[in-house]
Amino acid sequence: MKKLTIIAFVVLLFCDLSQARESKPVESLPNKVEQWDFYEISLPGPTAGNPFIGIEFSAVFTNGDRTYEPEGFYDGQGIYKIRFMPDYEGIWTYRTKSNYDALNGKTGQFECIPPSNDNHGPVRVRNQYHFAYEDGTPFYLFGTTIYEWPFQSKEKRQQTIQNLINSPFNKARFLAIPPWRQEYVEGADALDCFPFMGTSKENWDFSRFNPVYFQKLEKCVLQLRDIGIEVDLILFRPYDNDKWGFDMMDTETNDRFVRYVVARFAAFRNIWWSLANENSFMEHLTDADWDRLFQIVQAKDPYQHLRSIHNAGRIYNHTKPWVTHVSLQYYMAVRFFGVSPLLRDIYRKPIVHDEINYEGNISKRWGQLSGEEMVYRFWVAYIGGAYATHGETSKGQPYGDGWISTGGELIRESPARIAFLRKIVEDGPKGGLNPIDQYYIKNMAGKYGEYYLIYFGREKVKQWAFRLPDEALKSGMRFKVDLIYTRNMTITPLEQVFEVEKLDRYEFIDKKRSKVELPGKPYMALRIRRIK
Amino acid sequence: MKKLTIIAFVVLLFCDLSQARESKPVESLPNKVEQWDFYEISLPGPTAGNPFIGIEFSAVFTNGDRTYEPEGFYDGQGIYKIRFMPDYEGIWTYRTKSNYDALNGKTGQFECIPPSNDNHGPVRVRNQYHFAYEDGTPFYLFGTTIYEWPFQSKEKRQQTIQNLINSPFNKARFLAIPPWRQEYVEGADALDCFPFMGTSKENWDFSRFNPVYFQKLEKCVLQLRDIGIEVDLILFRPYDNDKWGFDMMDTETNDRFVRYVVARFAAFRNIWWSLANENSFMEHLTDADWDRLFQIVQAKDPYQHLRSIHNAGRIYNHTKPWVTHVSLQYYMAVRFFGVSPLLRDIYRKPIVHDEINYEGNISKRWGQLSGEEMVYRFWVAYIGGAYATHGETSKGQPYGDGWISTGGELIRESPARIAFLRKIVEDGPKGGLNPIDQYYIKNMAGKYGEYYLIYFGREKVKQWAFRLPDEALKSGMRFKVDLIYTRNMTITPLEQVFEVEKLDRYEFIDKKRSKVELPGKPYMALRIRRIK
Repeated sequence: MKKLTIIAFVVLLFCDLSQARESKPVESLPNKVEQWDFYEISLPGPTAGNPFIGIEFSAVFTNGDRTYEPEGFYDGQGIYKIRFMPDYEGIWTYRTKSNYDALNGKTGQFECIPPSNDNHGPVRVRNQYHFAYEDGTPFYLFGTTIYEWPFQSKEKRQQTIQNLINSPFNKARFLAIPPWRQEYVEGADALDCFPFMGTSKENWDFSRFNPVYFQKLEKCVLQLRDIGIEVDLILFRPYDNDKWGFDMMDTETNDRFVRYVVARFAAFRNIWWSLANENSFMEHLTDADWDRLFQIVQAKDPYQHLRSIHNAGRIYNHTKPWVTHVSLQYYMAVRFFGVSPLLRDIYRKPIVHDEINYEGNISKRWGQLSGEEMVYRFWVAYIGGAYATHGETSKGQPYGDGWISTGGELIRESPARIAFLRKIVEDGPKGGLNPIDQYYIKNMAGKYGEYYLIYFGREKVKQWAFRLPDEALKSGMRFKVDLIYTRNMTITPLEQVFEVEKLDRYEFIDKKRSKVELPGKPYMALRIRRIK
Repeated sequence: MKKLTIIAFVVLLFCDLSQARESKPVESLPNKVEQWDFYEISLPGPTAGNPFIGIEFSAVFTNGDRTYEPEGFYDGQGIYKIRFMPDYEGIWTYRTKSNYDALNGKTGQFECIPPSNDNHGPVRVRNQYHFAYEDGTPFYLFGTTIYEWPFQSKEKRQQTIQNLINSPFNKARFLAIPPWRQEYVEGADALDCFPFMGTSKENWDFSRFNPVYFQKLEKCVLQLRDIGIEVDLILFRPYDNDKWGFDMMDTETNDRFVRYVVARFAAFRNIWWSLANENSFMEHLTDADWDRLFQIVQAKDPYQHLRSIHNAGRIYNHTKPWVTHVSLQYYMAVRFFGVSPLLRDIYRKPIVHDEINYEGNISKRWGQLSGEEMVYRFWVAYIGGAYATHGETSKGQPYGDGWISTGGELIRESPARIAFLRKIVEDGPKGGLNPIDQYYIKNMAGKYGEYYLIYFGREKVKQWAFRLPDEALKSGMRFKVDLIYTRNMTITPLEQVFEVEKLDRYEFIDKKRSKVELPGKPYMALRIRRIK
């Protein structure tokens, strides 16, 4: 015990004390919390022994017939906390439960008030293949990747925030575990503490978390929440390369880590759980291990935030019931039409292509896409009724591979064009883009009878005969067409009105057999909307 | 009871009596059976009441420490049978078990002798993504579809057999349930009896099978066995269109039907179980129903023949443990490269594209492929490390849509070209074709360091720089190249020898930077084999 105490002491000194001060007990709790914000109970409790082990602590929150029981966590310096995200307006009362008297039977209440304008609640699956905030507002996912941004300097983090604000991205993937390459970390206040007490793999105390580390990570999550960005928080990642050993922890430590992270972060409405990045590279973890880790998250997260896992060569079985959506790394799946609809039909869940290679110029082939190709892959994903996640690389960076490592500045051509796509998607059917006749038509999405988006990819089309699959059509329906050029980000409405009649058992056609003229360039699209 | 007896009597008269005579008790059993052929016990038993219900009947077969317990079945006319497929040479002894004295405790033995030349045993999964006969002989699947051939005239069936003998196909999909369209059936000895006693949906006795129906079906299965063709026996199919009601039977009937079919057919070594064709069109059956039916087959088939199910719009979850391979209908999956490798990585089982549209000229769009397109889809499947199943249609046929309905004559251009592909696959790596670097290369299969097959599809390639992914390569390795033209079925060996050296972290290249010259036509391939 003595040795552990000394290590904890050393680490507390090592960590930024201005951070540590934030873990003081909160004396006066706010009595009003907006819906989907979080309420925090903070109580002094036992400090003898190891406060991370053997202390049961939770609270039952009740409002009418709604009841939740979030778990608490030890936040250091003798303070235990419970965070709770109310999902319903009105008075919530609580009573704590613990096997320690000091933490047991504490009661209180607060008022949950209406959410502020930009607060739509956590994101849920809706319409089977899509997402929406809990208040019903559609969430059209446009992801980006900034794996190690929380571990960078304050200036770099602020630059990242500013770039995200000006970007089309509304979901960011990053790590809950620090990067293995110290040289990937820029600045003095960066990687100065770790998830566990200790300073290196020679002296981790895997039985004691370092609350200061998590407080810093929480700030990052809340900063993104405040600019409207969902966080795909990656709980495990491989390629530690024997630096810290965080990818080689034992089962007990992994389980305790997941439980602690859920206790700390679940009350943040913008959290998504990504069990791992490239999980199968952690070869000592079996599918059964991942099953168990998923089940811990499922059992301990009172709000059932979205859950998935990101693969390397061996793809986890996303059909399992605790996986809410497919988080896939498979580049061929966004290089060819028809694959996303197939994935939807296989999994019957939303498909998120969370790694499709990155736009950039590093020597590794996964980071060499042209902007043209990145944007093409995005369109192929969305035209298939799926979603995608962006990333950028830059060679010669002092601390990693550019944006995907450290965040910082978006410098490449795809974000503007992804913003253009996002606008089109947002202006599309409220229920999201679904494949149109996916068994026979490779490149059409929308909503039968209402809205059709056709993406021609690399084909240099000069004419498109106005023909649509028969579902939901009737003779006499009229449509207008916009010509979209995705490279230049232009939308040109065509004057002509198209009126359909039945052609055969499968299709309707413009009654004058009109054709849409196109300029014969690659990366064009057509948007066809019914005139009501 | 009286009514049922009368119906049974009528049906026996209606059914071809020359068939019915085959179900006499076999007085003298053979005492030698070759391995993977079947031994049949035939015993007189109770005829009172309903012999299909409540009579338990099985036999324990033993040879050393090998033990199997196949279930028996009532074969009509007072005779009960048990069929057994011995999988090991030597003396097998058996003892019957029954809750009826007449069927209980009967013992006997036979000698299992070595298999004859063309008998390689049942087909199993091997190397995760491929198939082999039980004796280890690779089985490179080349399927075809003849849904209703067992219900055609003897002449038509014989023509089908003759065409299959001359075809590249070694697996045939067909129905265990009769077609709903009586007009799909040609000839007098065709659809003259049904799986159940009765003559129409007004009078089926779903509690009584008609053994004569199954005897006829068994003959078809054994005819295919004798010409080396595996049978993908389809247990259920929709689109009965209220004709017979066989797609709307209740749970108890479905379960009993499956159990009866397994008892009758499992001892035939060429059986594969296809739980259904387009299963989701049977809307009253849930995933839980299919799970249960799979589990019955799994529990009752002592030999664990291959099991899968073929989908309509809703794809059954083939990751479930009782599914041995993926039997998929998804046309886009064979129109684009890269999809079969993804499917392999998702399912980690063999992928069989069991319906990829059919070559032909009927008005329905699923039966209109050109031969060119059918062959293209086959190549796309095999270059992705998967397998495919052929079918042909013909318009204006009196009894259905041509070959896929009735069998008969293969008249189109794809079979010869599929035979050409089969020869290439058979001459390839013994372990089967696997994708080469499937994350970055879309159209290469083979075996690292040994054998590479590149298919260019519709691309009109004039030059191919000799470059191969680095895995298993060393500088100095030498290769020869064959130019394959899949349309004309020609293989042209090139004179040149290519010697590789390392180019970068990903690739080896010919040390003279040589290029392979190609004629710039679509549908070309290259075969690259290492010179040892």
